[in-house]
Amino acid sequence: MDITALEKVALSVRALSIDAIQKANSGHPGLPLGAAELGAILYGELMKHDPADPAWADRDRFILSAGHGSMFLYSLLHLAGYKDMPLEDIKNFRQIGSRAAGHPEYGMAAGIEATSGPLGQGLAMAVGFAAAETMLAARFNTAAHKIVDHYTYVLCGDGCLMEGVSAEASSFAGHHGLGKLIVYYDSNKITIDGSTDLAFTEDVAKRYESYGWQVLRGSMYDFEEIARLTAQAKAEAQKPSLIILTSIIGKGAPNKQNTADAHGAPLGTEEAAAARANLGIPGDFYVAPQAQKYFAAKQLEWKKTSENWQTLFAAWSKENPQKRTEWDKFHSGKAAPAVLPAFNSGDKIATRTAGNKALTAIATANANLTGGSADLKGPNAVGLPPEAGTWTRENRAGSYIHFGIREFAMAAICNGISLHGGLRSYCSTFMVFADYLRPALRLSALMKQPVTYVLTHDSIFVGEDGPTHQPVEHLAALRVIPNVRVLRPGDAEETAEAWAMAMEYTAGPSALALSRQNITVFPKADPDWKNTIRTGAYIVKQAEGGNPDAVIIATGSEVGLALEAAAKVTDKKIRIVSMISKELFESQPAAIRDAIVPPDARVIVCEAGVRNGWERWAKPEDILSIDRFGESGPADKAAEHLGMTVDALVKIVG
Amino acid sequence: MDITALEKVALSVRALSIDAIQKANSGHPGLPLGAAELGAILYGELMKHDPADPAWADRDRFILSAGHGSMFLYSLLHLAGYKDMPLEDIKNFRQIGSRAAGHPEYGMAAGIEATSGPLGQGLAMAVGFAAAETMLAARFNTAAHKIVDHYTYVLCGDGCLMEGVSAEASSFAGHHGLGKLIVYYDSNKITIDGSTDLAFTEDVAKRYESYGWQVLRGSMYDFEEIARLTAQAKAEAQKPSLIILTSIIGKGAPNKQNTADAHGAPLGTEEAAAARANLGIPGDFYVAPQAQKYFAAKQLEWKKTSENWQTLFAAWSKENPQKRTEWDKFHSGKAAPAVLPAFNSGDKIATRTAGNKALTAIATANANLTGGSADLKGPNAVGLPPEAGTWTRENRAGSYIHFGIREFAMAAICNGISLHGGLRSYCSTFMVFADYLRPALRLSALMKQPVTYVLTHDSIFVGEDGPTHQPVEHLAALRVIPNVRVLRPGDAEETAEAWAMAMEYTAGPSALALSRQNITVFPKADPDWKNTIRTGAYIVKQAEGGNPDAVIIATGSEVGLALEAAAKVTDKKIRIVSMISKELFESQPAAIRDAIVPPDARVIVCEAGVRNGWERWAKPEDILSIDRFGESGPADKAAEHLGMTVDALVKIVG
Repeated sequence: MDITALEKVALSVRALSIDAIQKANSGHPGLPLGAAELGAILYGELMKHDPADPAWADRDRFILSAGHGSMFLYSLLHLAGYKDMPLEDIKNFRQIGSRAAGHPEYGMAAGIEATSGPLGQGLAMAVGFAAAETMLAARFNTAAHKIVDHYTYVLCGDGCLMEGVSAEASSFAGHHGLGKLIVYYDSNKITIDGSTDLAFTEDVAKRYESYGWQVLRGSMYDFEEIARLTAQAKAEAQKPSLIILTSIIGKGAPNKQNTADAHGAPLGTEEAAAARANLGIPGDFYVAPQAQKYFAAKQLEWKKTSENWQTLFAAWSKENPQKRTEWDKFHSGKAAPAVLPAFNSGDKIATRTAGNKALTAIATANANLTGGSADLKGPNAVGLPPEAGTWTRENRAGSYIHFGIREFAMAAICNGISLHGGLRSYCSTFMVFADYLRPALRLSALMKQPVTYVLTHDSIFVGEDGPTHQPVEHLAALRVIPNVRVLRPGDAEETAEAWAMAMEYTAGPSALALSRQNITVFPKADPDWKNTIRTGAYIVKQAEGGNPDAVIIATGSEVGLALEAAAKVTDKKIRIVSMISKELFESQPAAIRDAIVPPDARVIVCEAGVRNGWERWAKPEDILSIDRFGESGPADKAAEHLGMTVDALVKIVG
Repeated sequence: MDITALEKVALSVRALSIDAIQKANSGHPGLPLGAAELGAILYGELMKHDPADPAWADRDRFILSAGHGSMFLYSLLHLAGYKDMPLEDIKNFRQIGSRAAGHPEYGMAAGIEATSGPLGQGLAMAVGFAAAETMLAARFNTAAHKIVDHYTYVLCGDGCLMEGVSAEASSFAGHHGLGKLIVYYDSNKITIDGSTDLAFTEDVAKRYESYGWQVLRGSMYDFEEIARLTAQAKAEAQKPSLIILTSIIGKGAPNKQNTADAHGAPLGTEEAAAARANLGIPGDFYVAPQAQKYFAAKQLEWKKTSENWQTLFAAWSKENPQKRTEWDKFHSGKAAPAVLPAFNSGDKIATRTAGNKALTAIATANANLTGGSADLKGPNAVGLPPEAGTWTRENRAGSYIHFGIREFAMAAICNGISLHGGLRSYCSTFMVFADYLRPALRLSALMKQPVTYVLTHDSIFVGEDGPTHQPVEHLAALRVIPNVRVLRPGDAEETAEAWAMAMEYTAGPSALALSRQNITVFPKADPDWKNTIRTGAYIVKQAEGGNPDAVIIATGSEVGLALEAAAKVTDKKIRIVSMISKELFESQPAAIRDAIVPPDARVIVCEAGVRNGWERWAKPEDILSIDRFGESGPADKAAEHLGMTVDALVKIVG
């Protein structure tokens, strides 16, 4: 280990960070200046990676959970030779079009493994990465060839550790013994408000021990110690490790270091100059020649490592052709078509139950589908076929995950699994608790990760559990998040297609809204409905004898309600449209939309939730909705109490 | 302590719970059967309360954080003699109109201190109750008279402790040394999925010690022990206490106890009969005569206690008339009017900054306003006047709270403070992180608590921090929650009124959406705008010379953008409406709406967020919105990139 070179790398991280933030007049110098040494040794010595092959499946992953310190990551990617992070992008830090965005954005540059910034979630996603590694290792490694064998490294700060999601994820990681997860805690005792003494005096080490982690301590500024502690972390295969590194925020800025002023604002011309002088930085966007030389020499070493792996992989492929085929399937990025379950008109079945049949079929065709529920395996109906097994310490090849009552971490972990590559993930809870995991769902959407969210008990038809468990605003609230495909199937047949549509959609997450209550499978007027539904809507019932007097748009369990209402209306010609995905349908060309909902038709909307968003389609008085919290009572009584009935719809039809 | 009587109380809790759940054919017997002994001793011996005066300000509070076990609470309220919980309601458990709703609903019956059910939040709210107690005690108690001196008791289960929000809140409680918070952990090692060994094997005791709590252990079924442990908890004034009580879920149901089957479904006719036989329950909805007698005797004792307090309170009032006046003001449920800050047209000031001036004025007039930020005191601009002080261990009379980076717990704690009585609470974070606290905001709304949420950095005009920090869907997502008053003021003057409107609104929480960027204060066409704005909208600029060709509805910073656009349009008469609260305006009678937005007018909408919900007002092509995630860059550049510009609006006007 060339300590002098590493010092120069750290110096270069500081130099680039000071200047990029200063030039942008925006950014967070505190972390990159405070933790530069860790970055140097991680990217230079500890991590297995190859900047020339950043997508290498068996690379170690690094997640900057404290995403505001993005210049830490960008500097290191640049110095280490990642092509996606040229100096030009760093010089355009935080400008439109620069890959060096305000916070690390997944997809903008190779080497950014996850979008981070919303605190705590990087750590929680890292737990997903580490879980994914165990799954792939268990399935693909052989006694002769260990093709999956990498670590997940995380850098987090006080903020990440205060957030509840990191508590949930860390407890989960400890329970599951994720030994290849190594978290460095940049302990600088400073947050935006000032000293952590203001609000955060818990014993973090003890807390992590309570989760079943190995906890180690050292200094941020001792390379030998970091190397030793990391080796110790690696040696502990049964426990994740937290390495607490005492550090100084903004280290090197002589007047601002160790104060909250260093955290989230540029140093300012004067202090930047003072820092440069203090550190001995001779020029703008300075990269020390020794650092350059050091990383230049590393390229060869890294190339050798990744080539060795390619050789290993080739040998493994030769000896295990079936596994190789499976591997390619896992990494294709496409779900294999499944033999979806069939249902018959008249069957009475809850869409959550139908969903389980579809999930089972899809999981059978796609062994790389993994996921579970936040302690609602039965109620959510999201069990996998028995051969998929349960993922435990003892059975890393299992696919079903017991997340515990930790919705937020569950979703973040699913993001991590999805980002890792090789696996598709799903998670589930009651729809009302989509609120608990919403920040992670937003990241699924922002990172365009095809995580499937199974949200059951999707309306006031939950019944007795009452308003705390009855979603009313959740469909509307999910629909407003960009890139999310919200799917609310009307019966069991639609549910099977909904699951297939979720698997087909890879530009973001899907949210399946499924019923607790039984729903009768209805006949579909459109003979091609299984194709048409992929526009987001199709015609369930045609108006008999010509142009409809009214088109009823309904979703989910309200399609059945609309059918019942239409049967009671004898003096009007009514078309019924099941709109399984409002946003998807609204994104169709006018010609397609108009064929299903004629532009001049009177439109009535029926959905057991708030009306917001439906005003595009119908006048306020033509919307049957629930614009208040629910009520505890048997489902039919609650529906009656809240006016979500066949009669109410008939009355609107008039 | 009459152990035999307590046993009969516990028996009666079990009897009532079995039958109510059985009759409703819905509910969770596991907890009430498993923890009946704790309930008996709490309501019979440990708690200071008076069922005849359930609103008594100095009563101890009990929060059933594991709200699914609602029959535990209802049984005890009934047995203890709370008038609001007659047997009739229990017999109508989980039916429409019954005060014994599926989960405890605040407001349905005295004795229900909080709505619980969404796991973890009960405990977090309890932290708020305990914090409120210290604040009121510090302000009102004198050496001679301790009129505020009560405990907050919580019953929680495994689920509550797995949720991140309890981790956040518990760390906060430990940091702040809330010695009068006593949490009983019903440790039955069973969750819905089965054994806690599936997902939850952390060392809870050690974890709570790491937070700075006192941790005690005992058996759920030893009254003497529970009494002793509770005394020990009370004796520790500097630390909250976690009392871990080992228990058996569904205790008494011979075949289902100690299994997940006992958790969340009625026992079933057979098992209910077996349980009755096993426990010796002779009849339906059985209340043991000894239990009845025990509580009948208690009434007198309780009456004496509460009367003693009344005497104490009267003496205190006499000696401290000023304090008494202040006390009445605190408990009036109404905010005092404040001298709001004045601004001048042309002033350039961020609405967050204007908000701080308004907050300062309101806090000066209302000393019972307490709150703070999740470590963003400066960025959110929510500091209080210096004389308000900071709430710390050393200064319990302080009003500003450092919540730490714990958004969800912050909001839940504010709910607890508000529910406690005597105080108004506010909390703040970046608007994008409203997602982190959304489940607590939903409870504010459901419980109709006037918590003020200050959400700054309210659009893509945040700029460089990029899409993780730029809300686009959040205004829409907040507006869909029933009872929430979303207020997005257009300039500093509107901001002052918005804060006043938030204080006036007591039927739910308010969410203030405030800008990071400076905004120019604009002149208002409506001379009575300070009144009109209370309809949710008013006319900022009249169309010159007659009926408008178009009405532009804008909110927040986009009002200024609309004014600039209108100035560029010379060939059309344009009215500009600032719609500070869309839902409020939409709830107005048609006559009021029509006066501001004529029903036949062409309406154009401009808001820097997703369009969902605005289609009620304008055609899709007449809405200038941002229907995608944001982009990292300087605010003006980001806005240009995303098409949120004056020119784009001019183009729509045509």
